[in-house]
Amino acid sequence: MHAVVIRRGESAPAVVEKPRPSPSAGEALVRTLRVGVDGTDHEVIEGRHGGVPEGEDHLVLGHEAVGVVAEPNDTDFEEGDVVVPTVRRPPPEGSNEYFERGEPDMAPPEACVERGIDGAHGFMAEYFASPAEYLVPMPDSYAEWGFLIEPISISEKAIAHAAASRSAFDWTPESGLVLGNGSLGLLTLAMLDQRGYDRIYCLGRRDRPDPTIDVIEALGGTYVDSRETPVSEISAAHEPMDFVYEATGYAKHAFECVQALASGGVAALLGVPEPWRFEVDGGRLHKELVMHNKAVVGSVNSNREQFAAAVETLAELPEWFLEDLVTGVYDLDEYETAFEDHDETTIKTAVQFDQI
Amino acid sequence: MHAVVIRRGESAPAVVEKPRPSPSAGEALVRTLRVGVDGTDHEVIEGRHGGVPEGEDHLVLGHEAVGVVAEPNDTDFEEGDVVVPTVRRPPPEGSNEYFERGEPDMAPPEACVERGIDGAHGFMAEYFASPAEYLVPMPDSYAEWGFLIEPISISEKAIAHAAASRSAFDWTPESGLVLGNGSLGLLTLAMLDQRGYDRIYCLGRRDRPDPTIDVIEALGGTYVDSRETPVSEISAAHEPMDFVYEATGYAKHAFECVQALASGGVAALLGVPEPWRFEVDGGRLHKELVMHNKAVVGSVNSNREQFAAAVETLAELPEWFLEDLVTGVYDLDEYETAFEDHDETTIKTAVQFDQI
Repeated sequence: MHAVVIRRGESAPAVVEKPRPSPSAGEALVRTLRVGVDGTDHEVIEGRHGGVPEGEDHLVLGHEAVGVVAEPNDTDFEEGDVVVPTVRRPPPEGSNEYFERGEPDMAPPEACVERGIDGAHGFMAEYFASPAEYLVPMPDSYAEWGFLIEPISISEKAIAHAAASRSAFDWTPESGLVLGNGSLGLLTLAMLDQRGYDRIYCLGRRDRPDPTIDVIEALGGTYVDSRETPVSEISAAHEPMDFVYEATGYAKHAFECVQALASGGVAALLGVPEPWRFEVDGGRLHKELVMHNKAVVGSVNSNREQFAAAVETLAELPEWFLEDLVTGVYDLDEYETAFEDHDETTIKTAVQFDQI
Repeated sequence: MHAVVIRRGESAPAVVEKPRPSPSAGEALVRTLRVGVDGTDHEVIEGRHGGVPEGEDHLVLGHEAVGVVAEPNDTDFEEGDVVVPTVRRPPPEGSNEYFERGEPDMAPPEACVERGIDGAHGFMAEYFASPAEYLVPMPDSYAEWGFLIEPISISEKAIAHAAASRSAFDWTPESGLVLGNGSLGLLTLAMLDQRGYDRIYCLGRRDRPDPTIDVIEALGGTYVDSRETPVSEISAAHEPMDFVYEATGYAKHAFECVQALASGGVAALLGVPEPWRFEVDGGRLHKELVMHNKAVVGSVNSNREQFAAAVETLAELPEWFLEDLVTGVYDLDEYETAFEDHDETTIKTAVQFDQI
């Protein structure tokens, strides 16, 4: 079968021939439909994040997948079931408490591998095998969008953890700000809209006309140009935010967003920046956090429950939004286009291996 | 009656004669037993925090009080009931949503006054009046320690909010670190011990012999000398901490404590620093928060429910601990001693107005 891989030491993906996997006991064989491409894939390709499996010279890419069960093997799945795989797996030395309690998303990096990212082959191949416990079923009626379930699940977790941090008091968020107008930012903005936020904002640094600004405004949101209104000034220029979702990986945002929060507000941090030293008014930030009961919650990955929630969320997202968000789905013979440097008309791409 | 006040523009408290308050409808008159002194009082006296009520030239000090109902007036209290007053009251312009839902602790500073701290007279007087809803009953059997209920309630809230932030996953904290070996730090250390933390640590910068180090060790805790082991190195020198409680107001701690946390850990920030610009490795901190699912929660003040929890907590704290913690209780004619610069044998002081 064909697989899209990054070879150790190379800086662009390649298509290689690999044997079709044979499912072990407890595993199903899945025929891949589509696999999304995101910023993490680019970081993996550029060697800034993750790594190839131990003892191998390449990594099969892809962690945002949807497929169809081809061989249920000894699992409870049936042939034809549409499934989405979760990303984290036990490390080479075996399972641990995080996997045993169904919370691999809470494992520290050394206690897991991540398929398609770090230490385990991904799903960007014609077939993949996976233990049934890591396959989440979804209706076939919207299988074409199934590769969005993984990124949605990332936000399901972040939003859930942020809300949990405010569960000791009466917290009814009305204003939400997403930092970053990439595909994850836009998906999250749509989720906030879906959850009844009255006023949603999305920060970017693009000139109009721009398709992401069009999506923000079509969702009823306000576009905030960071070149005109830095994060630290958003509260004054617009309003203090009950919830801030940071999806840029720009480390200064993790600090400035405290100033963007309303009293009792919470910021979820998602981006993964490199080390970067800079000056902050640490005294002011500390005092703001305390005197206004603010919180900052880091969040990475997602578990099976959050994938299941994402299946529900995806069903409710408007079709026009998904059509506008996904700007390109490419067959394997055009896979390079899915990875090309994004121009300003590209939002979200995927590689298509097969159809239902 | 006598009251201990700070006059506008002065830098030391004074005893003045004031009329005994007359309780309004819904208020009880309380005969004060004891009022604790803490770091906030010193900040108020030094003019670094809070302020006198509008249109007045002095502030009656004291926010950590215990007293006995002298005149129930039209409330449900009975004469002789031992009560502890909460601190926040509606601002001069009237009540608001935070007070209406019983969460004045979540109000931003402009939406409340604080008795004895900011904009409203405190409890350091022979009598005070208070609406019944802001008086929390406690058993008379340990009324002598009742002035500790307010500070304990501060930690009840901080611990509850920190735990809430971890409630979206299985979090069973075993290791806890308190930054600051002042009276609030030691009270919190005892609370962590009471709550079943296996290993507790407390950071200070004192040489042995020192009574706070003795208390830390008598609680089974480990003293961490910040001059030898900075916060950023505690994780390596001891262990990563599931919970960190910051009670120093030293702004660098609010950032460094992220490095002291275990995966999935949470830091509660309590101190209130002045503005202070300094350099941080913001990229590393941001990444740590994300990749390890860490959280930082600011917390200030406490509500009636948390006072009620503190009444229960106080009942369970060992007598030896309370005896060692409270190093001086002074009658009104010695009130200045309760405010004197703490030497190394002073941990917690109170002014005594009367006995049950």
